[in-house]
Amino acid sequence: MESLHITLDQSEIPTHWYNVVADLPTPPPPPLAADGQVVSAEQMGAIFPAAIIEQEMSRERWIPIPEPVREIYRLWRPSPLIRARRLEEVLGTPARIYYKYEGVSPAGSHKPNTAVPQAFYNQQAGIKRITTETGAGQWGCSMAFAGQMFGLEVRVYMVKVSYQQKPFRRSMMQTWGAEVFASPSPMTQTGRDLLASDPDNQGSLGIAISEAVEEAAGRADTSYALGSVLNHVALHQTIIGQEAKKQFAKVGDWPDVIFAPCGGGSSFAGVAFPFIADNAAGGRNGRLTRLVAVEPTSCPSLTRGAYAYDFGDASGFTPLMKMYTLGHDYMPPGIHAGGLRYHGDSPLVSQLHHEGLIEALAVAQLATFEAGVMFACAEGIIPAPESNHALRAAIDEALRCKLTGETKTIFVNLTGHGHFDMAAYDRYLAGELDDFEYPAEAIRASLEHLPKLG
Amino acid sequence: MESLHITLDQSEIPTHWYNVVADLPTPPPPPLAADGQVVSAEQMGAIFPAAIIEQEMSRERWIPIPEPVREIYRLWRPSPLIRARRLEEVLGTPARIYYKYEGVSPAGSHKPNTAVPQAFYNQQAGIKRITTETGAGQWGCSMAFAGQMFGLEVRVYMVKVSYQQKPFRRSMMQTWGAEVFASPSPMTQTGRDLLASDPDNQGSLGIAISEAVEEAAGRADTSYALGSVLNHVALHQTIIGQEAKKQFAKVGDWPDVIFAPCGGGSSFAGVAFPFIADNAAGGRNGRLTRLVAVEPTSCPSLTRGAYAYDFGDASGFTPLMKMYTLGHDYMPPGIHAGGLRYHGDSPLVSQLHHEGLIEALAVAQLATFEAGVMFACAEGIIPAPESNHALRAAIDEALRCKLTGETKTIFVNLTGHGHFDMAAYDRYLAGELDDFEYPAEAIRASLEHLPKLG
Repeated sequence: MESLHITLDQSEIPTHWYNVVADLPTPPPPPLAADGQVVSAEQMGAIFPAAIIEQEMSRERWIPIPEPVREIYRLWRPSPLIRARRLEEVLGTPARIYYKYEGVSPAGSHKPNTAVPQAFYNQQAGIKRITTETGAGQWGCSMAFAGQMFGLEVRVYMVKVSYQQKPFRRSMMQTWGAEVFASPSPMTQTGRDLLASDPDNQGSLGIAISEAVEEAAGRADTSYALGSVLNHVALHQTIIGQEAKKQFAKVGDWPDVIFAPCGGGSSFAGVAFPFIADNAAGGRNGRLTRLVAVEPTSCPSLTRGAYAYDFGDASGFTPLMKMYTLGHDYMPPGIHAGGLRYHGDSPLVSQLHHEGLIEALAVAQLATFEAGVMFACAEGIIPAPESNHALRAAIDEALRCKLTGETKTIFVNLTGHGHFDMAAYDRYLAGELDDFEYPAEAIRASLEHLPKLG
Repeated sequence: MESLHITLDQSEIPTHWYNVVADLPTPPPPPLAADGQVVSAEQMGAIFPAAIIEQEMSRERWIPIPEPVREIYRLWRPSPLIRARRLEEVLGTPARIYYKYEGVSPAGSHKPNTAVPQAFYNQQAGIKRITTETGAGQWGCSMAFAGQMFGLEVRVYMVKVSYQQKPFRRSMMQTWGAEVFASPSPMTQTGRDLLASDPDNQGSLGIAISEAVEEAAGRADTSYALGSVLNHVALHQTIIGQEAKKQFAKVGDWPDVIFAPCGGGSSFAGVAFPFIADNAAGGRNGRLTRLVAVEPTSCPSLTRGAYAYDFGDASGFTPLMKMYTLGHDYMPPGIHAGGLRYHGDSPLVSQLHHEGLIEALAVAQLATFEAGVMFACAEGIIPAPESNHALRAAIDEALRCKLTGETKTIFVNLTGHGHFDMAAYDRYLAGELDDFEYPAEAIRASLEHLPKLG
């Protein structure tokens, strides 16, 4: 009988990350300062160690994964590739549906894939402390875990409203030894100024980034770490797609289409980029793979945004990056997939989309939770709301196959579990969850604030 | 380099459960009615299907695992056996520490190992609905998941105080399609009577059991399901120890000592019983395995209880079972390892303890959380508070090895993750958690209420 789980031995964990820059038709547009000048490696050195900056700018196709990183990866990797045969049966589809389950990591998502090497390179550079921000807490937890693995202090600036509403993610970070501050905090000038004018400021991801960067820039022993968007983050996540390719080879199958949730772009990049190389070479045995980034209709940067230089954060603190953006001051509606509430997108993902090498799709909130509950009832695992976006798209594709009779191979990046998102499921099951209308006016307004270059 | 994860292929999932009754020196004392008469299979038939009753009474050594049960097991089994090398390093111990991680199941603990076959046998018997009770929610979630897998309706009576304080476990059950009622509820006579005399009754596990059993006894299409204590539950859990033996064989190692948390006894039984047979045969290559049940000092049934016939529930509704008990009306202090707050113990575990084939050990709450945090910081996984009891004992054993220089092999049953217990970790980290003094007076008092037989 066919195996449901396609496992790899730990000795089969990939030895290199794949850098998609090597296979891009054109070089990536560089990050720019507000004055239009290219940001130099020296400038980045204020908040990142040299090894990270080198990866951020590298054009090498293969970057070796250091052995100490692989050692930590082995705490949960290789992650399983699972054929969702019970879901196929429920849908009555001739399609084969596979998912790569990244929820097996200690933090419960794909985020540790990059938190671990970031912690390692910082430790190697003699850095003692890492600052970072977190919204709902997924990234903060991953960085707290990774910092603990390499003996680094981790300080997390957590958006105040989440700090108060999601105490369990905070407890998880503290269990791994991190310090967690509600942002805006009295720890930074940014925070103190904001609190002086409004002691009840509830915070935002933009503010939390500003606080974390301010602290890192001001201390030589401290670096900053980011959980998505940047090239080195996408690079580290390619462990997912690399493993998946080995797993598909084991069962003699190959994906016709891949769906991954897409907010800042790291989970999509992680699973999809390794297939870019195969597609560029004409496909595996002539079989091309469609690569589909799935985003929320309420935050549709790839499907409705502009491809332009914009700030990475809400307050205009970071360099400008060329990406699909809804405008840096676009405030997405309060959907429960917090990891997808980002105004922009990874510059690499954006470029690939601009060049037509990947596709994008937007789905509405209620339909994603419907997909999540259907998946949980068929396969057992309760997925993270972010993952539900990819599942929705995959289920729709499988239902199309039912109509056409196609035996397509569909592959989903199941980025995490929903154990800390049950309040959202509760609201969905109680009929209290809303879709949001397409926020055309808000997007139009924020796109008018795109920075003017030069 | 030595592998940390010792994995099995899905084809290596055991085909049979192991029934320790076949290897007991004396036959197990039967369950009795309040009048001292042996409870018959016919009487049990009011709430259990015939296949379950047969297993409850079986003396066969090997019971085949039906293929539909193995199919669901394959959603997460085999569970990994992991060598905790980072923990060994932190402790500086020459001992080898392994853990079997049961938190990979959809419900996050070992409980689905028995919920799944219980759902299957009920479905086979034409049963449409299952009732059960849950305290903190671990068992209710497992039964909700298992019921969904076999198309059964599941009704969970959840202790009211937990229903209100732990909404996320409730949402999890509902996501898998179960109905969840705060107990005492208006659904049963038991509940209605209690609510009539006290509308604010906060409920107890004993009351919730009474409600679930009442509903099952009154409807021909409905069975009751229990998550621990009984022989068939212990039987189903032996999948854990059976897998572990194959995994140890793969690396040419064998445990000198096994630690498992022990409340009702199912997780201990699951990992330890399969080693009873080896011990009885003189050990594997002459190597005997100490089997240690670890319980809380605040609920020390094996270490401080009486070996006597007592009720399984608090209100005296169930048959009498011969077991180590603190008295059925003993009310354990409010420790956070809710799964270990049981006044009695599995009759099989109790008999093995009485006959000197296993050991028992009690540990205090604060020390267990200290062990849990130490484990999380070394190995990544944040364990359930119940699992922390076994970890505490294992860490102490490893530290003894450090003193003596012994290279012992220590094996821990890591029964689940702590994702739904972060409030307890939060209190521990904030210094708000207490140990409880040994409740000698309360135990003495409740032991005076042991039922008089005949």
